[in-house]
Amino acid sequence: MTGEYFDVSMEIRTDMTVYKNRRENEPKIDTYNSHLTKGLQQSAICMDLHTGTHIDMPLHVIEKGESSSKFRIEQVCGDCRVLDLTENDEKITDAVLREKTIRPGEIVLLKTKNSFCDTFVGDFAYLADSGASYLAGEGVRAVGIDALGIERGQEGHPTHRILLGCGIPIIEGLRLADVPEGKYELWCLPLRIAGVEGLPARAVLISL
Amino acid sequence: MTGEYFDVSMEIRTDMTVYKNRRENEPKIDTYNSHLTKGLQQSAICMDLHTGTHIDMPLHVIEKGESSSKFRIEQVCGDCRVLDLTENDEKITDAVLREKTIRPGEIVLLKTKNSFCDTFVGDFAYLADSGASYLAGEGVRAVGIDALGIERGQEGHPTHRILLGCGIPIIEGLRLADVPEGKYELWCLPLRIAGVEGLPARAVLISL
Repeated sequence: MTGEYFDVSMEIRTDMTVYKNRRENEPKIDTYNSHLTKGLQQSAICMDLHTGTHIDMPLHVIEKGESSSKFRIEQVCGDCRVLDLTENDEKITDAVLREKTIRPGEIVLLKTKNSFCDTFVGDFAYLADSGASYLAGEGVRAVGIDALGIERGQEGHPTHRILLGCGIPIIEGLRLADVPEGKYELWCLPLRIAGVEGLPARAVLISL
Repeated sequence: MTGEYFDVSMEIRTDMTVYKNRRENEPKIDTYNSHLTKGLQQSAICMDLHTGTHIDMPLHVIEKGESSSKFRIEQVCGDCRVLDLTENDEKITDAVLREKTIRPGEIVLLKTKNSFCDTFVGDFAYLADSGASYLAGEGVRAVGIDALGIERGQEGHPTHRILLGCGIPIIEGLRLADVPEGKYELWCLPLRIAGVEGLPARAVLISL
């Protein structure tokens, strides 16, 4: 790995920003052995699987949907495009996305005003169901966004259901402030946890 | 990502193999919201930071050593060589490694008999301090092994101290059974947890 890259992952800390500022969802780190007591340091972490940068599996919103056991990393690694939507308002619709040329098989990352805000705000920019349908119809491989949710808890979670129902993984919690619009290679590697509905991940964009 | 690759990460499960079979170190997954109760599934995980495939930081064995906050992914991504030591006995010494041609800057992964054993055994193959000194002297970038520890709890943790003291990260818990000896590109992306001594990671080898 020699070229320029962008680490687009959130840092995981006990005081990090969490969805809807739910304190109970903040990660907890327990350093149970220390140099003083044991001559080495060992810690454990308790964290929500939807903490920071993470990938949603179909099982998150679809009963009997596929869990992480069926997930393949090819779904979130490869040709990628960052779309600059920072001038757009809060709602990303099909009309907004039609102005960009979406190509089948590419991973689309939505860069919004969220990337410039380090706290959780209720009016975060999100992908409307019409935008999700458009991206699914164009055959994208995965969709990512710089918010801890890709929608704002809309009744029935339509944006999640449209994408995950088509087998399109959703990457949430990206940090794209420093990344110009353009083409990249995405490496998004989640922990290999079996049988769950969400996977914490590290994500890196390589300049082409 | 189009070519052949090997996922060399352990699967994280509640019944997975853990170091010295310490039950208290097995990961716990709590599915706190379900489709039945909430119309969607959400889970949290509690896990030791040295669970499965993970990277040790200097702070693990060196008091005031660097934590994960100083870690750069370049240290564990890039040119890599898998050394087949499956015919070797349990102890990997400098003499064993001198038979291989180690190149400065490469990441060295030690494939041993451990990769063919799915349970924790006390006599796992490990890197002796003489082997660690040799690799550090040759200027390797990182060292990985297919055991949950790179040494067997030797007094003072010499192998850890030699490598980490030279700023050489240690990747433990790799699964290399299917990987032939040779050159690869390694992508080892850990979670971006701040200020800790170990980082759970996903690791993938790309055939060159």
